[in-house]
Amino acid sequence: MDLSLTDVLEAAERIRGRVRRTPVLELEHEDLFRGGPVWLKLEQLQHTGSFKPRGAFNRILKAAEESGVPEAGVVAASGGNAGMGVAYAANRVGVRARVFVPETAPRVKVEKLRKLGAEVVQVGRIYNDAYQVAVAEGERTGALFCHAYDQPEICAGQGTLGLELLEQVEDVDTVLVAVGGGGLLAGVATALHGRARVVAVEPEHAPTLHAALAKGGPVEVPVSGVAADSLGATVIGEIAYKVAVRTGVESVLVGEDAIREARRFLWDTCRLAVEHGTASALAALLTGAYKPRPDERIAVVICGANTDPTDLAA
Amino acid sequence: MDLSLTDVLEAAERIRGRVRRTPVLELEHEDLFRGGPVWLKLEQLQHTGSFKPRGAFNRILKAAEESGVPEAGVVAASGGNAGMGVAYAANRVGVRARVFVPETAPRVKVEKLRKLGAEVVQVGRIYNDAYQVAVAEGERTGALFCHAYDQPEICAGQGTLGLELLEQVEDVDTVLVAVGGGGLLAGVATALHGRARVVAVEPEHAPTLHAALAKGGPVEVPVSGVAADSLGATVIGEIAYKVAVRTGVESVLVGEDAIREARRFLWDTCRLAVEHGTASALAALLTGAYKPRPDERIAVVICGANTDPTDLAA
Ligand SMILES: Cc1ncc(COP(=O)(O)O)c(C=O)c1O
Ligand SMILES: Cc1ncc(COP(=O)(O)O)c(C=O)c1O
Repeated sequence: MDLSLTDVLEAAERIRGRVRRTPVLELEHEDLFRGGPVWLKLEQLQHTGSFKPRGAFNRILKAAEESGVPEAGVVAASGGNAGMGVAYAANRVGVRARVFVPETAPRVKVEKLRKLGAEVVQVGRIYNDAYQVAVAEGERTGALFCHAYDQPEICAGQGTLGLELLEQVEDVDTVLVAVGGGGLLAGVATALHGRARVVAVEPEHAPTLHAALAKGGPVEVPVSGVAADSLGATVIGEIAYKVAVRTGVESVLVGEDAIREARRFLWDTCRLAVEHGTASALAALLTGAYKPRPDERIAVVICGANTDPTDLAA
Repeated sequence: MDLSLTDVLEAAERIRGRVRRTPVLELEHEDLFRGGPVWLKLEQLQHTGSFKPRGAFNRILKAAEESGVPEAGVVAASGGNAGMGVAYAANRVGVRARVFVPETAPRVKVEKLRKLGAEVVQVGRIYNDAYQVAVAEGERTGALFCHAYDQPEICAGQGTLGLELLEQVEDVDTVLVAVGGGGLLAGVATALHGRARVVAVEPEHAPTLHAALAKGGPVEVPVSGVAADSLGATVIGEIAYKVAVRTGVESVLVGEDAIREARRFLWDTCRLAVEHGTASALAALLTGAYKPRPDERIAVVICGANTDPTDLAA
């Protein structure tokens, strides 16, 4: 499976009016103690607080176009942002959504999914149990399975934010993107290929792409740390790996403290409350894990705000 | 004292590059259960978390142009956003700032002002004590006194966000603005006069403009409630009153629960953590205190985020 710019352009057409065109905020030199300008793409302002509805809408609407969404609706496995994206999109399109989560999923996440109109099925002990059941359920009932990252429609949908960015930030040189399973990365790198460089940022404790690039293919890695709730995939998606290699994505890692500090920085400097995973991308800039040329025009994707903001109180 | 569009245009020229051009977020019909579109002007992303640096920069830079900022620097009286705006602007311009606050000011606010480079002087029991001392200190030392709202340069500076809005939202019909002492209102109404209607929104428990319009002039009102920390002025400014009457600003009131719900709505729907005072403006739309025509194009100024986000945790 690979992904083309056409896929992303078609996705943009398909989901238009369904998702918010999220704005960008330009930071000033003094804010970041560097020469060139930095723009934040405020995608955490998207419906459900992350970019995930983009991919979910694209997957569901494409199925609707081609053969109609199955009677059995859609299924997904995720207690987090991916699940919320699918629940939201299904609800707006008017199809049934069942989201599978482990029995251990926190009640507040289950409640959020229900509030978005999804049926929540709690099954198994860990995420992978819920995943297996969701896939099987899709096969048994004919329901449309929505992967959290490794399906072309999902990746193409996420990539639409890259197209917006190209319109919003003239002559952007480099875009920093956080990576979990790589759906966001795959889409954005495809959207920007030939126009801007893409830097994939991962926590040291969740280096799915980094490990894959070192080994020459996707490999399971142990995952932990502050960003694991959103960047918790244990293996990079096939699509993301392929796109990253083909388009020459640069991969960098950031430490736990750097992630915490970047999250704090976003609140202190811009009053943006974001997830730790989301802060990773900016951490690469603040720590110098990614070192831009002085006049390089940089955009950072701020991708999720499903965070408990309690610790941000001054 | 009155205010002209020229004042605001000159302010914009003067403070260019010193303040962030804050972005707007377009909400969709479904979000607000109404027909026409709604844009949020995300001014809480401004330096220090509110619009206040705009006016402070304008006041300080205008003085610098005309006769130079006095040796004694600038003085202000405020433990809140106005003080932070002055502290920030003075620091960036490179002049000394002294901010007077009551002895009862919370330590965290004092610390914030110090971190922004201001000297903090704690004096008296209530805000008005600190205010009197700050004014006297300005007169004694020749320091430039920066009022929280009732000076033309302050109002003109705040108005620059109105000019941005006109560029960002084509054919905007109506702009909703929260009012404390009315510096923001005066500036925005001046910027928009003849181009868009302005609606001034106040908490029922802090109706400084509403009372003034009823009485035919500024009057002291008792002030309390959830929004009092930012909309706590006890009398509307002379400038704001004059501009409001001359330009035909409409005044509406919103209740405490409506304010709380609007603040909650902004987090739940857009992951924006804002102050209660700031949420007032949107509350007028959500409650119907202001009832737009179905196709009316509405912008809401989101003006501050110096809030404890703890209670926003899901
Ligand atoms: C906020 C946020 N950022 C980044 C990611 C990573 O996305 P991907 O798995 O597509 O790499 C996720 C995934 O859940 C997320 O929720
Ligand atoms: C966040 C916020 N919104 C609104 C206001 C009201 O501004 P004004 O006093 O200019 O009416 C203030 C004043 O401090 C504020 O801090």
